[in-house]
Amino acid sequence: MEKFRIGIIGATGYAGVELVRLLLLHPLAEISALGSVSFEGKKISEVYPNLLEICDLPCLTNEEVIAQSDVVFAAVPHGMSQELAAQCIQNKCVFIDLGADFRLSDEEDYKQWYGGEFKFKGLHDAAVYGIPELFRGEILGKVLLANPGCYPTSIALALSPALMGGFIEPSGIIIDSKSGVTGAGRGLTQTSHYVDVNENFGAYKVAQHRHTPEIEETLSRMAGEKITVTFVPHLLPINRGILSTCYVKLKEGFTKEHLRAAYAHVYKDEPFVRILPDGLCAAVRNVKYSNICDISIHVDERTNTAVFCSAIDNMIKGAAGQAVQNMNIMLSIPETTGLELIPPAF
Amino acid sequence: MEKFRIGIIGATGYAGVELVRLLLLHPLAEISALGSVSFEGKKISEVYPNLLEICDLPCLTNEEVIAQSDVVFAAVPHGMSQELAAQCIQNKCVFIDLGADFRLSDEEDYKQWYGGEFKFKGLHDAAVYGIPELFRGEILGKVLLANPGCYPTSIALALSPALMGGFIEPSGIIIDSKSGVTGAGRGLTQTSHYVDVNENFGAYKVAQHRHTPEIEETLSRMAGEKITVTFVPHLLPINRGILSTCYVKLKEGFTKEHLRAAYAHVYKDEPFVRILPDGLCAAVRNVKYSNICDISIHVDERTNTAVFCSAIDNMIKGAAGQAVQNMNIMLSIPETTGLELIPPAF
Amino acid sequence: MEKFRIGIIGATGYAGVELVRLLLLHPLAEISALGSVSFEGKKISEVYPNLLEICDLPCLTNEEVIAQSDVVFAAVPHGMSQELAAQCIQNKCVFIDLGADFRLSDEEDYKQWYGGEFKFKGLHDAAVYGIPELFRGEILGKVLLANPGCYPTSIALALSPALMGGFIEPSGIIIDSKSGVTGAGRGLTQTSHYVDVNENFGAYKVAQHRHTPEIEETLSRMAGEKITVTFVPHLLPINRGILSTCYVKLKEGFTKEHLRAAYAHVYKDEPFVRILPDGLCAAVRNVKYSNICDISIHVDERTNTAVFCSAIDNMIKGAAGQAVQNMNIMLSIPETTGLELIPPAF
Amino acid sequence: MEKFRIGIIGATGYAGVELVRLLLLHPLAEISALGSVSFEGKKISEVYPNLLEICDLPCLTNEEVIAQSDVVFAAVPHGMSQELAAQCIQNKCVFIDLGADFRLSDEEDYKQWYGGEFKFKGLHDAAVYGIPELFRGEILGKVLLANPGCYPTSIALALSPALMGGFIEPSGIIIDSKSGVTGAGRGLTQTSHYVDVNENFGAYKVAQHRHTPEIEETLSRMAGEKITVTFVPHLLPINRGILSTCYVKLKEGFTKEHLRAAYAHVYKDEPFVRILPDGLCAAVRNVKYSNICDISIHVDERTNTAVFCSAIDNMIKGAAGQAVQNMNIMLSIPETTGLELIPPAF
Repeated sequence: MEKFRIGIIGATGYAGVELVRLLLLHPLAEISALGSVSFEGKKISEVYPNLLEICDLPCLTNEEVIAQSDVVFAAVPHGMSQELAAQCIQNKCVFIDLGADFRLSDEEDYKQWYGGEFKFKGLHDAAVYGIPELFRGEILGKVLLANPGCYPTSIALALSPALMGGFIEPSGIIIDSKSGVTGAGRGLTQTSHYVDVNENFGAYKVAQHRHTPEIEETLSRMAGEKITVTFVPHLLPINRGILSTCYVKLKEGFTKEHLRAAYAHVYKDEPFVRILPDGLCAAVRNVKYSNICDISIHVDERTNTAVFCSAIDNMIKGAAGQAVQNMNIMLSIPETTGLELIPPAF
Repeated sequence: MEKFRIGIIGATGYAGVELVRLLLLHPLAEISALGSVSFEGKKISEVYPNLLEICDLPCLTNEEVIAQSDVVFAAVPHGMSQELAAQCIQNKCVFIDLGADFRLSDEEDYKQWYGGEFKFKGLHDAAVYGIPELFRGEILGKVLLANPGCYPTSIALALSPALMGGFIEPSGIIIDSKSGVTGAGRGLTQTSHYVDVNENFGAYKVAQHRHTPEIEETLSRMAGEKITVTFVPHLLPINRGILSTCYVKLKEGFTKEHLRAAYAHVYKDEPFVRILPDGLCAAVRNVKYSNICDISIHVDERTNTAVFCSAIDNMIKGAAGQAVQNMNIMLSIPETTGLELIPPAF
Repeated sequence: MEKFRIGIIGATGYAGVELVRLLLLHPLAEISALGSVSFEGKKISEVYPNLLEICDLPCLTNEEVIAQSDVVFAAVPHGMSQELAAQCIQNKCVFIDLGADFRLSDEEDYKQWYGGEFKFKGLHDAAVYGIPELFRGEILGKVLLANPGCYPTSIALALSPALMGGFIEPSGIIIDSKSGVTGAGRGLTQTSHYVDVNENFGAYKVAQHRHTPEIEETLSRMAGEKITVTFVPHLLPINRGILSTCYVKLKEGFTKEHLRAAYAHVYKDEPFVRILPDGLCAAVRNVKYSNICDISIHVDERTNTAVFCSAIDNMIKGAAGQAVQNMNIMLSIPETTGLELIPPAF
Repeated sequence: MEKFRIGIIGATGYAGVELVRLLLLHPLAEISALGSVSFEGKKISEVYPNLLEICDLPCLTNEEVIAQSDVVFAAVPHGMSQELAAQCIQNKCVFIDLGADFRLSDEEDYKQWYGGEFKFKGLHDAAVYGIPELFRGEILGKVLLANPGCYPTSIALALSPALMGGFIEPSGIIIDSKSGVTGAGRGLTQTSHYVDVNENFGAYKVAQHRHTPEIEETLSRMAGEKITVTFVPHLLPINRGILSTCYVKLKEGFTKEHLRAAYAHVYKDEPFVRILPDGLCAAVRNVKYSNICDISIHVDERTNTAVFCSAIDNMIKGAAGQAVQNMNIMLSIPETTGLELIPPAF
């Protein structure tokens, strides 16, 4: 079988370089070209010396990347993907966007939270939102995909079975998420200076994070009604990983056993979701460096509150890994190809 | 002025050794004796070489400590303080308990959550629960004090003004707390092994932590009605610090401005509480190594949810520092004596 | 091709569980049995929940492991491997020891540094010391192998070409090594408590570490004369990785260019050694989660001192990865099989 | 006693803000003005919210600071202090420079390593190099002081008694130092990005660090002959602290006991130097947040090498604390005033 030629735009960002690593290990993919505006002309291994002698490809322009690829991944700041998508589609190139431009179906939401507009409405109609465990059927055969945000992935997987089954109240959902620093990207900011992060912990953008409408759109689809959530992200002093602790009101008559049964059913054949047995809490450690999402289910019977903890590696299931999973589905490759990563014990 | 002779029982635990450090710097206190069951006969500086040539006192028996002290602090596992308290009171010694034995006023709660009973009911009646900002008037002149738990301190300070003012619904309170590892103590357990904690993050004892009844008792006192909360603690890969993110429903008609005014009023003369200006979120970094509690107030208008973030140093305001603050009040010493610790920038 | 049946004794230690992970990904190996004295009867995934649904094998006795395997790895405390080796050899099982029992050829050294003796002298004669880059020819076809220590691996690779080429003085070698905490093992000790390690750094066992004779034996072999070194290990607040900084006197007439040429020659076909270009220093980050050793070469012309920095992942090239590399050679499998791990950027 | 009016130029850098913290606690000092080019017009507590309500002074121009102060500390990049010193001296202001401009007595060294020149030679003649334990007599009464670099402080204290006593060979000294990230400053660089530092470790500027001539000048003064060293710094994933491991050849006839006696003698009345008992190694943990330097003495009898480990808090004894110590001496205040900081256990 001939390998698919893969181009990565924004290859020197954190999601980009993680894509490079995953695709180098993918048996049916061949990285054909890397694009980087900041490092054009440099080798990727000059920017990331971990790749020395493993991938010494030069960074090219976006146009060069598109011209040389069957599939293009873009990991660029929001607002920059729409033009790239248009070029790719015109070039008969599959386009997978790791940014936010195609994630929201409602242009009003996009305007309000990102301050931009939909430049090519047809593309937005053609785009599919790629959480395979929830929308696998829609992804197959598509050529334009919006890869979900890291927080939304962890939350959608944690809450969807409960919403689908009608076990929980649709209002009053509280989501307290915590993310490692790679989520903030490679750019230099005071808030990602080592001394600011280390031995520190705090919330940021309380109830104002741009992932909020994306979270709500997915949860609303799963619930079949409009869901509004309170979402508070925090910054963890670790490199990788997200833990989302989700608090919801259990509807009368339902117990943890109902929830466990529903989750077991919904995820029973999913290669990348584990429902943890009673007594275990989802933790970042057990999923990092893998494409796995761990979910633990708890019920506080004193207050009738269900608590779902979900853990993912924000750069894999929350970015590059899920993007490859989506690519596999789009290209009709077995879904786990290149993603059989075992989370190390440490 | 003659200095008070201070004894510390359980001096080689984390709270104990932090008490040693604070009291060495206290101008009106003199450490008269240290007690440690595990290290009896050893110098404290053999256990903690940071204290070499600064405090080389030997570890004595509890009886010796009590005999040589005007004030005794005990930082020992729950269940062990009641006898100590009885001995101290008999010896006319002020007793400050950093453990849980005297925190709960309801023996049923103590039985249910700690599995023990009240051995000396008179002592329990005489004991005062010591959050100075809320109960200062009751602390003055007392000789037996229960120093609050670390999580309860952070939460009581965060929510009390809102409950006292009637701004928030008393039901449906969600508290998502995160603590550094010193909270788990010096004992050797797999969960405090460096490799287990580092680059990891997760919840533990979801809705089952023993601090729950203590939190509820204080919040109920402040609200004037029975409060039940959902409390989920998490373990942070840092040494010190607690951040509690508290989610409550704002009652109709109230806004962030009402909350800000109430908090400013309640805490306006408090030396150890800071209400942060809009735009800042409470963070562990800004309070560690100090006795300060930072509180930030946020309102999610989309869901009418108020979010309070509070940050403390779990070993100071959450343990040893608050204990010294309480001692100062009990002894009619100026309350900030020995506690003018400036949180370092890093 | 039928897969080799692999048994792992000491599977619940850090080196053991890393072997599990690597061998699960090895296309020609099948884990047949896991052994653990501490956790006999439990599933490995109960001890390490990262392996849940990935490897749920139970922990068996050592005898059961040996009976079910073609190749046995042992990652047990020193003194325990000699009996295991004897049983394996008797059972026609290949034996790869990750401990120290077979590393030293001189029994006197073993007695002096480890306090034991050679129980089966014939086994010691049959054993080969497995640093493939230096002793590949001797490894092929052997059935009993001593996998090197983590520090010795990093040091032998850093200094061997210089010693083989006669570029440096054989006396006065100073080795300052720094290791992550996994090197100290999973056992509970005060020195691996999170709070003791985090935000700390110091040396330990200065000039007294048991790896010293192993380092000296290999360097002596490479130099063709007796080498004695000063070796000082330090504990780093990280999970994985070793950096060794080696200081040697450059012989008159030699320059950095001579060294670079020699290192390029010796390692030119090595898949797991990278000689870094000028301007880069070997760093743990660039090799962790891989079997690669990075070496940077520096010369201080003011003092005529050559400085070699070498970085490895202590659990992979310093333990489990090198053990698999050795297994591949012993079994005439392509050497890189199962080890094509790309170090992630973070 | 009237308090000295203290100005701090460069107050928003790491050394500057640490000076702010220490001087706020100094009973004989009053911070009169803060200077910052980057944040002029902002309050220091806007840049460092840990100082909120504790120090809300605005950042002024350098000229304003000098005009309002009896003593000026400058913590600015090298090359910028000479003009400031001239202004201060003219204004009869004591000047303490935390930068490198006045540390080297030989202008050639300054040119070679820093690329600048001595603008006011008279000032350089008047300046004193301030390691109190070695040069106390020269500091008293001076008005212009060069506060030493962090690495040089840790190294000079570790090696001076051995050199003064003639116990060690003056050639072949190897110094392997490791520093926390605050040493690199608050500025945004890729090498201080959290993700680059965390779980990483490596050397930098091998044998090329600008502290080298400063180290050599001090060691040469102590030895009474020209000393050249090999100095290799490394970056530690911690906020604070330096550990220097120094390797020297012991002269024939001398033993560890000679060294211990000499060190005990030289430092016997020093409030900020501790010579550790046998069995302990100097470690960052035991000195951080204090002005203490811990030194442990080791001898490798197999190679006749003495190893000195010294640990300091790079921001206190290595910067702000030593600067205050020097100020105290210059102003004839008791030397430990404001510096009785007890290193916390964690």
